[in-house]
Amino acid sequence: MRIGFIGLGSMGAAIAANLIESGHEVHVFNRSPARAEPLREKGASVASTPAQAAQGTDVVFTMVADDAALDEVTLGEKGIFAGLRSGALHISMSTVSVAAAQGHAEMHRKAGFGFVSAPVFGRPDAAAARKLFIMAAGADEHLKVAVPLLDQLGQSVGIVGADPSQANLVKLIGNFMLSVIIETLGEACAVAGKAGLDPMHLVELLTSANFNAPPYKIYGSLIASQRFQPPAFALPLGQKDNRLMLAAAEALGVPLPLAGLIHDRFLTLRSRGIGADHDWSAVALCALSDAGLTGQERGI
Amino acid sequence: MRIGFIGLGSMGAAIAANLIESGHEVHVFNRSPARAEPLREKGASVASTPAQAAQGTDVVFTMVADDAALDEVTLGEKGIFAGLRSGALHISMSTVSVAAAQGHAEMHRKAGFGFVSAPVFGRPDAAAARKLFIMAAGADEHLKVAVPLLDQLGQSVGIVGADPSQANLVKLIGNFMLSVIIETLGEACAVAGKAGLDPMHLVELLTSANFNAPPYKIYGSLIASQRFQPPAFALPLGQKDNRLMLAAAEALGVPLPLAGLIHDRFLTLRSRGIGADHDWSAVALCALSDAGLTGQERGI
Amino acid sequence: MRIGFIGLGSMGAAIAANLIESGHEVHVFNRSPARAEPLREKGASVASTPAQAAQGTDVVFTMVADDAALDEVTLGEKGIFAGLRSGALHISMSTVSVAAAQGHAEMHRKAGFGFVSAPVFGRPDAAAARKLFIMAAGADEHLKVAVPLLDQLGQSVGIVGADPSQANLVKLIGNFMLSVIIETLGEACAVAGKAGLDPMHLVELLTSANFNAPPYKIYGSLIASQRFQPPAFALPLGQKDNRLMLAAAEALGVPLPLAGLIHDRFLTLRSRGIGADHDWSAVALCALSDAGLTGQERGI
Amino acid sequence: MRIGFIGLGSMGAAIAANLIESGHEVHVFNRSPARAEPLREKGASVASTPAQAAQGTDVVFTMVADDAALDEVTLGEKGIFAGLRSGALHISMSTVSVAAAQGHAEMHRKAGFGFVSAPVFGRPDAAAARKLFIMAAGADEHLKVAVPLLDQLGQSVGIVGADPSQANLVKLIGNFMLSVIIETLGEACAVAGKAGLDPMHLVELLTSANFNAPPYKIYGSLIASQRFQPPAFALPLGQKDNRLMLAAAEALGVPLPLAGLIHDRFLTLRSRGIGADHDWSAVALCALSDAGLTGQERGI
Repeated sequence: MRIGFIGLGSMGAAIAANLIESGHEVHVFNRSPARAEPLREKGASVASTPAQAAQGTDVVFTMVADDAALDEVTLGEKGIFAGLRSGALHISMSTVSVAAAQGHAEMHRKAGFGFVSAPVFGRPDAAAARKLFIMAAGADEHLKVAVPLLDQLGQSVGIVGADPSQANLVKLIGNFMLSVIIETLGEACAVAGKAGLDPMHLVELLTSANFNAPPYKIYGSLIASQRFQPPAFALPLGQKDNRLMLAAAEALGVPLPLAGLIHDRFLTLRSRGIGADHDWSAVALCALSDAGLTGQERGI
Repeated sequence: MRIGFIGLGSMGAAIAANLIESGHEVHVFNRSPARAEPLREKGASVASTPAQAAQGTDVVFTMVADDAALDEVTLGEKGIFAGLRSGALHISMSTVSVAAAQGHAEMHRKAGFGFVSAPVFGRPDAAAARKLFIMAAGADEHLKVAVPLLDQLGQSVGIVGADPSQANLVKLIGNFMLSVIIETLGEACAVAGKAGLDPMHLVELLTSANFNAPPYKIYGSLIASQRFQPPAFALPLGQKDNRLMLAAAEALGVPLPLAGLIHDRFLTLRSRGIGADHDWSAVALCALSDAGLTGQERGI
Repeated sequence: MRIGFIGLGSMGAAIAANLIESGHEVHVFNRSPARAEPLREKGASVASTPAQAAQGTDVVFTMVADDAALDEVTLGEKGIFAGLRSGALHISMSTVSVAAAQGHAEMHRKAGFGFVSAPVFGRPDAAAARKLFIMAAGADEHLKVAVPLLDQLGQSVGIVGADPSQANLVKLIGNFMLSVIIETLGEACAVAGKAGLDPMHLVELLTSANFNAPPYKIYGSLIASQRFQPPAFALPLGQKDNRLMLAAAEALGVPLPLAGLIHDRFLTLRSRGIGADHDWSAVALCALSDAGLTGQERGI
Repeated sequence: MRIGFIGLGSMGAAIAANLIESGHEVHVFNRSPARAEPLREKGASVASTPAQAAQGTDVVFTMVADDAALDEVTLGEKGIFAGLRSGALHISMSTVSVAAAQGHAEMHRKAGFGFVSAPVFGRPDAAAARKLFIMAAGADEHLKVAVPLLDQLGQSVGIVGADPSQANLVKLIGNFMLSVIIETLGEACAVAGKAGLDPMHLVELLTSANFNAPPYKIYGSLIASQRFQPPAFALPLGQKDNRLMLAAAEALGVPLPLAGLIHDRFLTLRSRGIGADHDWSAVALCALSDAGLTGQERGI
């Protein structure tokens, strides 16, 4: 299939490479063109605008940083809308706000394009290994096109429903739940550390028992060893998703005390100089630092 | 092996039955004798005091409600110490405080008895199915006796270390982490519910993705369907464990804001009349009620 | 002095009346004209647009609901900018965001108008009695004009500094501190109530001792008697100010756990149907309800 | 009147000195006798046991550190009960637990002694200046004796009621409210500091407006200037009172999220090495440090 792919960060690049490997004709675009070169070597055509990447395709994927970037590559002067043929499909994999997804669903419908939200769970290594968990939502006719493609990119595709924005809500809820796991492990490792129990041993014991889901294993190991660099999911991105979750919940009238706590953890870290060069699992540093277990040497 | 077993609540009864089924000669004791009858039918001898249940055994298990009950069956006038032969082993499976475990380890050592802490993760159905996750800690010579027995009772035995009280700490940390999962699911289902997304569908999507650990499945289903009765783990027991975790953390100088939040949830529920006839997953009712999703009809 | 006054809510009407009574020539405007009638009877001219109210004046006051209303009456087609003479002064008494105040200060400067932020502490009865506490900030030359007028409207005028937006920040901090007093009193009265100590007696004891500031007296009495209607400061306005404080703090990188707690209280109340017909002191209902002291009959 | 006075910490010494100055015959006792010397110079008799200090008196005051100390000086081998004449009165000014006060009220009644709880608000300088706010509770016949004496020691005596323990509850509630003021000021000064507004100026503006109660002035000045040493009320004592409040609230079934937050602040500070040489207003350091405003140089 002829496919456009816009946004070649560490997640997007891995997914686009898999589409190429699966035999699709992929036209890529990235704001800073250098990141497109490795894809060109794998066989992609490199477009100079989103409109050009979308031209002549049946499906265009986007995997960009935030609402503003999605607006720009879609609605900007040289955006997708300026190149996509009527009736073609836009699969938005970015973690954007529920409100943005609602707006795009409506605008695409009016403009005669299909729109599917398909945000993903998984870090870049999972994307490369086609191990992503993908949440997809959109009209049946659009899912019929999207799901077979998404099946090639991850280990499972969950069908959320007909409203694209609900896939984004599920993604935000999922990231919220991951952030709580990070905080939980931070507090648990703080207790263990001060009790003279090796935090890594604690994590092994628990993840060999009923806490045997991937997030406990991945984040447990990072937190127990206080290994927060380099980032696989950079702290400011996690902070952005926390804000999106709180905004969605506020609009729905739902208090989320857990997300409020994490919100403050992010602010604390940023104000102490911990930023984009750290993984978001560094949220656990707050609990460790408040217990007196770390700090000075890290500047927090 | 000749084994004493003291404490035949829903957990203890299931474990004792498995010991009988595995071919051991089991002498049981329970404060209210009626609960011993089903075990007698399965082949147990029913003792009239803990001392009598312990007499002549190599190993005596206890699975009782709290610190006070453990003290009573162990140190009371007709307690285990009054019946157990020198050199025999006490395997304490109860969820008791770290301080109590420390005290018992010391007292057993002085009195010439072995002591292993072996608290468990799993609800009564898991106990019956030998699917418990068991955390064991004690001196090597005592673990050598205990672990083969524990292996018959669960799907895995994690060796925490030589200090029995650290197994209790791991158990409390685990229950703390479960309580956070319950609160997380309450908040997540509140968001879903108000966004018009069926909470049960949310839970299925997430547990089919990366949240595929048993606690998310078990509690997710209970919370999405608001099915909190009858209790598998009664709310006041969960509240007790929350208190034990906070007490252990306070003694270690570790702030646990997540446990503090759960602590307040328990108080809220109890003050609104939700108690021992509810499962501890009813903690999720607070988030649902604060979002206006439930309440009046449940009296909260 | 010839004065324009825009925004005749319960606060604005009381202040405008005092300006008339002090001998000024006051031209009033309010979006819904009915509220201007009582002022007309007291001697005000009633303008049909903000521009008309501003025309020919030396000073125009605004006391409106929020950022959007301030933008509209100032920058809208028939707004203040369309009527005010060059060099005249705009005194903004509304509780608006720090960012909005920064924007208006800049726009007024560029357009050749003076701008002073002068938000107030005090409820409508205090406004009527000229008992407001006023926080004023702006350039010296503008304060020289504003402060003598403000002195006629309150019991004290605090000079915050040269940057108008800092007066708005102080106002938001003050309202944040009031909201914490409300929550504190809610929790304190919950303890007293369940201990069999009359909450009103508790409040009297404390406000006769070191808690002798007006907010403890005013809110203490409302909360101890659970008298939240009619509103003197409506709950949604308090919620708006809580959001503005959190937004300002987020922009500055300051975690505010207390404001986060109050934020959730507001969401809880709104989701349970408590809204604009309640005073913001109804925030205390949450603590009382969580303690089981009230609820069913109020629908929370 | 012949009076015994037990406990000569900074508060007790100031109060005892005032009793001497008012013309009473005062017999003092302190565990470490050196602290009794300045009182001897002022005219006190120095006793070598609490029993001796109580002997022959009509009223014995105690002002000691905690429940354990109150038990010891009252019920110990050479305690008050061993010296006090039947029918005499014990006025307990210490900040002890509600449960301890209940126990002492009962024990005194059975032993034929009067018992009045009369805890105080105010720091040592206020005690010296007879500016304390005193909360008194007890049977009418005992208050008839106690209140005229207490009137000599403070600026007001609030009569809580007939149950002595309720005065202790009011005291704990008051200290809880003070701790929230400290946290509030910490968060407020953090916002101001990062916005380029001098925290001391903020405090002056607010305490010149509606936040004109002593605690805002006293703690505002300490916090704005980050002057936490030497302590007037040492941090571990504040932490103790926070624990007592949480314990009383737990027994009553009242969640106190504000007290829970402060509880964690204390643990954080202690784990970072901030202890008895700091005033409890150092709780504000947490908010300042989380905002990145202080820290490294203070070791937090």
